[in-house]
Amino acid sequence: MTVAIAGAASTKFGKHPDSSARQLFRDAAEDAIDRSSLAVGDVEAVYVGNFMGALTDDQGHMGALMADYVGVPEAMSTTVESACASAGAAVRQATQAIEAGVHDVALVGGVEIMFSTGIEKITDALANAADNEYENEVGLTFPGIYGLMASDYMTEFGATSEQLAAITVKNRENGVSNPISQFQEEVTVEEVLEARPIAPPLGMMDCCPITDGASAVVLVSETHAQERDRSPAVRIAGSGHAGDTIALQDRAELARTTAAERAAEQAYEAAGITPDDVDVSEVHDCFTIAEVLAVESLGFYERGEGASAAANGETAVDGRRPVNTSGGLIAKGHPVGATGAAQIVEIVKQLEGRHPNQVDDAEIGLTHNVGGSGASAVVHVLEAIA
Amino acid sequence: MTVAIAGAASTKFGKHPDSSARQLFRDAAEDAIDRSSLAVGDVEAVYVGNFMGALTDDQGHMGALMADYVGVPEAMSTTVESACASAGAAVRQATQAIEAGVHDVALVGGVEIMFSTGIEKITDALANAADNEYENEVGLTFPGIYGLMASDYMTEFGATSEQLAAITVKNRENGVSNPISQFQEEVTVEEVLEARPIAPPLGMMDCCPITDGASAVVLVSETHAQERDRSPAVRIAGSGHAGDTIALQDRAELARTTAAERAAEQAYEAAGITPDDVDVSEVHDCFTIAEVLAVESLGFYERGEGASAAANGETAVDGRRPVNTSGGLIAKGHPVGATGAAQIVEIVKQLEGRHPNQVDDAEIGLTHNVGGSGASAVVHVLEAIA
Repeated sequence: MTVAIAGAASTKFGKHPDSSARQLFRDAAEDAIDRSSLAVGDVEAVYVGNFMGALTDDQGHMGALMADYVGVPEAMSTTVESACASAGAAVRQATQAIEAGVHDVALVGGVEIMFSTGIEKITDALANAADNEYENEVGLTFPGIYGLMASDYMTEFGATSEQLAAITVKNRENGVSNPISQFQEEVTVEEVLEARPIAPPLGMMDCCPITDGASAVVLVSETHAQERDRSPAVRIAGSGHAGDTIALQDRAELARTTAAERAAEQAYEAAGITPDDVDVSEVHDCFTIAEVLAVESLGFYERGEGASAAANGETAVDGRRPVNTSGGLIAKGHPVGATGAAQIVEIVKQLEGRHPNQVDDAEIGLTHNVGGSGASAVVHVLEAIA
Repeated sequence: MTVAIAGAASTKFGKHPDSSARQLFRDAAEDAIDRSSLAVGDVEAVYVGNFMGALTDDQGHMGALMADYVGVPEAMSTTVESACASAGAAVRQATQAIEAGVHDVALVGGVEIMFSTGIEKITDALANAADNEYENEVGLTFPGIYGLMASDYMTEFGATSEQLAAITVKNRENGVSNPISQFQEEVTVEEVLEARPIAPPLGMMDCCPITDGASAVVLVSETHAQERDRSPAVRIAGSGHAGDTIALQDRAELARTTAAERAAEQAYEAAGITPDDVDVSEVHDCFTIAEVLAVESLGFYERGEGASAAANGETAVDGRRPVNTSGGLIAKGHPVGATGAAQIVEIVKQLEGRHPNQVDDAEIGLTHNVGGSGASAVVHVLEAIA
């Protein structure tokens, strides 16, 4: 059975000091349901990506809470958590349930409230995605982890800080015209290089921000869509989900995300495509180096060659390989539990031809959602329904 | 495609002050894999039920951690969280993935470390399964919630504290011979009635204990089992998963768990059976009143008639409707993220004819796993493979 995306929406990403997780999730969900031309009551299952609600909102059991708050308390619901890949994993779980014939209509989304919690507590909460015994407890938090990956990459392949800075410049430029983007001002390579050091070689502008936000998609079986005489414009052509050691120290190579390589292979095989068929991608650029590792893992570039892609203009909206036309995590923002769904929302806009940074003739899009330093990776290939 | 259970195991439930979540989960997982006659390397996917790791262990991303620690870091993994129904939901998600043809072999389990965290922090953490804004924040924690449900039930149906006490007496008696059980001493009705009041009408012995523990099951597609010339003895004949409002105040009736009613209907329909076909059940007796609501939701008794079942001996091991032959949550213990898998472990033992409290000729078993005060409910029907 093929699974189509009937509706997709995100809230504004950024600071929502007066909103709770349930309010943001409902806003995104109602918008997605409206776009699907279905009624709330059609939703049979609710899957919620959330990572730190227990720490920031004193709230677990988010699946049931959101099903209730959206207006379908009777629906089956659950929370799916794979750190920053939570919503990507949630979309894949819901897709499998539809393929297994369990539901016809599933609401899948994610939410995170981070900003009002404060940077120190959030850094601690994010560190729970690493290995508590061997990383977090000994003081290694995520900027440090990705700093190590960047340092190793630069040493091995001779990449430069200027090349990484070009990724921020590109993504911030893309964020300017994306109405949901947390940052909507351009920056220069010089500004990125002169930003406060965080975990050298990574500076402040190599890092994505702390973000409040929610995203949601409505998944339907194509059979159901046809029966209801609906014509969703986008289908899930394939997906993959793979893993790696949770601690960076246990990997043979620091500057490589093999889980994403395997997830991408699974997704390409399921979709029957090759990397060259992908017209536009949203990748998990929690740090600039992560976008480099992403484009290599996805097979867009050989290892060691991904760092120059942004600097050469190849990953720009009008480049050969448009990546993060939304602004990515670096400009759009990264409400961790929502990000995997937010990426799908952006690709749906591209494939429906209504993206603020539209890629010409975009027919096949890809999302790449990573948890931790690469211990979880989920890849989806979406295609426009002809 | 039919999904079989190739292996199942729990750690000892109780106090594990020197063990981490990863150690307990691995112990249960290795035991389950050993029993399955498969190798660790055969595991393609790892699903972990966990509710409060972020609060008790500073550890999220438990799916990836456990996949790594069990020895299959490359496997797809995720955490599934539906409060105290987390592992039940995880088993169902994994089953759907196998049915969708995504994996052939999945390791599914759950773990919770509660005891060493201390009762006050754990009561707070558990309260995250309720509605934070309308229940938890205003001081209503789970003993209070179930106390209200019990009070309402007793008022409506004239049930007595003696009837509820008989449930504890039965489950504690069953726990005596279960080697994993946290409590292994019998108690009398008088002792239960004289126990310290917690949330009247519920006293200390109407409540399940705080527990450390882990459980795991190995799920395989029957096709895979046949190809490998294995003959698992138990299959998943059907399952259901449904919801209800997260806050008790929003329900039409307090003393009724409609999510469990609907989950049971789904499971019975999928399995092609009626309640009368069930030979043995493990139900979610987090409090005595919860076992009453369970046996009614499952269609074993009419509403208002479930309270007398234990007192009349009908739910005893040699009764007409054996319920919680393991000792249930009240005696065996309730490591919340593990409970749904632990219930399946116990039913597998019954259907394989090797349970310490064996029910004669048990061929069809059922598990009933509830999250919160009934906002999530997952029911599985298992059957012995002829």
